[in-house]
Amino acid sequence: MKRRVGQYLMDAVHEAGVNKIFGVPGDFNLAFLDDIVSHEGVEWVGTTNELNGAYTADGYARMNGLGVLVTTFGVGELSAVNGIAGAYAERVPVIAITGAPTRAVEKAGKYVHHSLGEGHFDSYRHMFEPITTAQAYITTENATTEIPRVINAAIQERRPVHIHLPIDVAVSDIEVEQPFKVEKTPQQDVSHYVDMVADKLRSAKQPLIIAGHEINSFHLHDELEEFVNKTNIPVVQLSLGKGAFNEENPHYMGIYDGEIAKDDIKDYVNHSDAILNIGAKLTDSATAGFSYQFDINEVVMINHRLFKLNDTSDTEIALPEFLEALSTIDYTNKHSFPSYQQPKSGDYELTDDTLTQDIYFKMMQDFIGGNDVLIAEQGSSFFGAYSLALPKNMSFIGQPLWGSIGYTLPATLGSQLANPHRRNILLIGDGSFQLTVQELSTMIRQDIKPVIFLINNDGYTVERLIHGMEEPYNDINMWDYKALPKVFGGDTVQVHDVKSSKDLKETFDDINTQPNHMHFTEVTMKWDDAPQTLRDISKSFANQNK
Amino acid sequence: MKRRVGQYLMDAVHEAGVNKIFGVPGDFNLAFLDDIVSHEGVEWVGTTNELNGAYTADGYARMNGLGVLVTTFGVGELSAVNGIAGAYAERVPVIAITGAPTRAVEKAGKYVHHSLGEGHFDSYRHMFEPITTAQAYITTENATTEIPRVINAAIQERRPVHIHLPIDVAVSDIEVEQPFKVEKTPQQDVSHYVDMVADKLRSAKQPLIIAGHEINSFHLHDELEEFVNKTNIPVVQLSLGKGAFNEENPHYMGIYDGEIAKDDIKDYVNHSDAILNIGAKLTDSATAGFSYQFDINEVVMINHRLFKLNDTSDTEIALPEFLEALSTIDYTNKHSFPSYQQPKSGDYELTDDTLTQDIYFKMMQDFIGGNDVLIAEQGSSFFGAYSLALPKNMSFIGQPLWGSIGYTLPATLGSQLANPHRRNILLIGDGSFQLTVQELSTMIRQDIKPVIFLINNDGYTVERLIHGMEEPYNDINMWDYKALPKVFGGDTVQVHDVKSSKDLKETFDDINTQPNHMHFTEVTMKWDDAPQTLRDISKSFANQNK
Repeated sequence: MKRRVGQYLMDAVHEAGVNKIFGVPGDFNLAFLDDIVSHEGVEWVGTTNELNGAYTADGYARMNGLGVLVTTFGVGELSAVNGIAGAYAERVPVIAITGAPTRAVEKAGKYVHHSLGEGHFDSYRHMFEPITTAQAYITTENATTEIPRVINAAIQERRPVHIHLPIDVAVSDIEVEQPFKVEKTPQQDVSHYVDMVADKLRSAKQPLIIAGHEINSFHLHDELEEFVNKTNIPVVQLSLGKGAFNEENPHYMGIYDGEIAKDDIKDYVNHSDAILNIGAKLTDSATAGFSYQFDINEVVMINHRLFKLNDTSDTEIALPEFLEALSTIDYTNKHSFPSYQQPKSGDYELTDDTLTQDIYFKMMQDFIGGNDVLIAEQGSSFFGAYSLALPKNMSFIGQPLWGSIGYTLPATLGSQLANPHRRNILLIGDGSFQLTVQELSTMIRQDIKPVIFLINNDGYTVERLIHGMEEPYNDINMWDYKALPKVFGGDTVQVHDVKSSKDLKETFDDINTQPNHMHFTEVTMKWDDAPQTLRDISKSFANQNK
Repeated sequence: MKRRVGQYLMDAVHEAGVNKIFGVPGDFNLAFLDDIVSHEGVEWVGTTNELNGAYTADGYARMNGLGVLVTTFGVGELSAVNGIAGAYAERVPVIAITGAPTRAVEKAGKYVHHSLGEGHFDSYRHMFEPITTAQAYITTENATTEIPRVINAAIQERRPVHIHLPIDVAVSDIEVEQPFKVEKTPQQDVSHYVDMVADKLRSAKQPLIIAGHEINSFHLHDELEEFVNKTNIPVVQLSLGKGAFNEENPHYMGIYDGEIAKDDIKDYVNHSDAILNIGAKLTDSATAGFSYQFDINEVVMINHRLFKLNDTSDTEIALPEFLEALSTIDYTNKHSFPSYQQPKSGDYELTDDTLTQDIYFKMMQDFIGGNDVLIAEQGSSFFGAYSLALPKNMSFIGQPLWGSIGYTLPATLGSQLANPHRRNILLIGDGSFQLTVQELSTMIRQDIKPVIFLINNDGYTVERLIHGMEEPYNDINMWDYKALPKVFGGDTVQVHDVKSSKDLKETFDDINTQPNHMHFTEVTMKWDDAPQTLRDISKSFANQNK
């Protein structure tokens, strides 16, 4: 079948499950965009800038399994670097496609715009190497081998890849003999490792699973739960990867966040004699500054591309296959473990007093539910939200390893577009919101209906708590946030003003009765108020910098 | 003298002429920010995000001679990459300082936030190598040698440098024996080359200077003009580097932009038998797609780090020293050349008709003057503005080589802060404005008074003209732009609504009578209207992509 390279690329990503393409036009990608807008399987969604586009593709990929970002050479792709690096760190598969000057222009070393003006064209591609799992320079000759290679790499590694697509190549005809197919990761015999894990478990009195973000990346929720149900091993989650385990499952103990975890969980974890770290990473923000008391060398690491048990390690294993093999294990835990304490409902009074962070999150617990997607921005919002109890069908998006403020507003655009029928609830603060505010415009343009809670507490609170509580560098300019939806054309967005718990309750009721609108709520709280978790973790961050 | 490394770094940049530091706080730079806000010589200016911060530092550096950007590790520095690359391409000296995790954290390979979670900490630094002229990893031991080295490199090369500053190093005490001093570029004997240039000139009947952006980068306006006055050689400028030559000087012929230049200029340039390219780069956007008729191999290249005349070349020469040596030349051109045609004043009628791009720029010609700084965004604004006649004391900022849309709004923040007493006039379009809109907030917060003209023509017009005139990917969401100053707290910003030439005239009058206010003007023009220059150059860009 004759296809243009650009068409073939769209055929391939569509076959891999993508139906929205994010990005910003630029003259080195325009002709390729023709093949995007005319493709029956995908829809073009222009974002207002490329960093926001990368965040959007990341949010989309977390829910959809794969995301695509299209930028132009130089100015475009380099604006997206931070977003792609975040996808790499947190294992989110985003295909970053750069429309580039023609091979003729490159060969002649011309001083074209968007180049460094030095006649070479390879610097930017190389800058993507440390933050992508595979890279390809597409030609008409290699298109049908390189495009499948990198798309499969993105899916198999759940990490971003970079495609350099000269614009003359994009519009060239090629002969496609076989349509693109997603390839399964090559199988590996891991039965020996599984036996080792079984032995370790059989001798244990306090076995434990720490579940983390790779479960979300690979969408292995059912597989993990099946393994847990079969083996009766209790589970804690990290904040990095919340959503990895069904919190309604009786084996769930709660969030483990180092020394600030609840006492019974902390005791169980710290004294566990068989910790299986499944798809989790024990980062500073997830463990209150590495404040775990167990011996990290005793932990059985079951990560994508890392199995480690004592002196045995293997950097080739694939998490999905390993988990499948693990499910054949013949082991049942007979020991008891603490059970998850469901938060109390309605544990607050409705008053006219200034709303506190404590009450805000208690009330939020009663608001969320069903199959909501909860997205929490790094800062007060994330550190307040990660302890909320989530019903089985809810999803959670945060970015605590990469921690790039401003990420969640565009990420919500992406996650909401991945599934317009799930209610997406974004919790964000004013400082973060200012970085990427313009993507609110794209939400309105796309006519999606997320529910946004913007905390206005006049500054970078997370930074204040780490260092410089009253220093001017942690101040921000005060905006009239509630006016923004209208400025961006959102005449039907419902705007709410919350200053007290009574206001918040009324707003929740309004939102629930008007599900067919986008809701934008400004929640004003005191500048020095913060969730206790954030206070505790900020202290550990400050100590780490000494 | 005992100083903390952070203090010493601020002492040094202040000594090099910097009095504003731009950036965004993050926990790996907070303790260093203490030494910035408490430093008597510099002031902290927080921007709303890091890419905007890089653009701001670039705009500041273009006017001030040096700029500084401070970001945090990973998320911050990588967001700024595109802005730093632009400074590299267009030779603007920006010192990009990254506050980084402590050496202890790095040595232990900890999984800290903002890292890729793989225990190594050097990827980001290496990503800056292709886009900076020098890089340094600061320690207490090397601070007093490495900091001077990279600051001097930035000044000598007029290009960005990257400083990786672990936060424990920033707050460490060091003994400073000698305060930082700017070093002059080492002198080199170029008299032989100057003789060669003189020989070439003496045999010429139609000598010419093409002046470009490096004159602006090195602030060599007076030196160039002196050389021209002495030798009587006529000068054309490229759009890349407009402002390099005094347009009131009788040797000025006008802008040369390849085949679309005025006939008399084009004839003179194409038939010149001795072209001195001084600090200029013949890029696609400057030459309507390389449409010059002269032989590029015959051009005498006098660039920073490149002298080339026939088979002789030298990549060590420094432009300032070369120009100084050139001024000793014994040569006077006796041949005639076309003189610059000053544009007619008032060459338009004031009507209620929809304003056209043509009339807009004719009227703008009559509005600008004095020692205004004119900043023109890549797109309709730049391609309309680069032909405007500038009085001697005006400055011009554009970014036609790098061409990153959204650049000029933050750049105007920087250029206006470099000298609050000069009127900064920003010409920008709606598509570009949306990328970096939040820096309008920082302008308001800093209480500066630029004059902003925002063309609302409903989309990416420059892209439409290259490819996809009516394609949806070149559409943008319509905003209520005029409401934005107020949303960002700018209650005293004067907002104007221009739809006709009469409106524009009234607005100009208002602006002139109220110089102590920021002015924000929305100029509505037709979506398919564009300056003729842009139409012509867009065609050449489209052809280049075939």
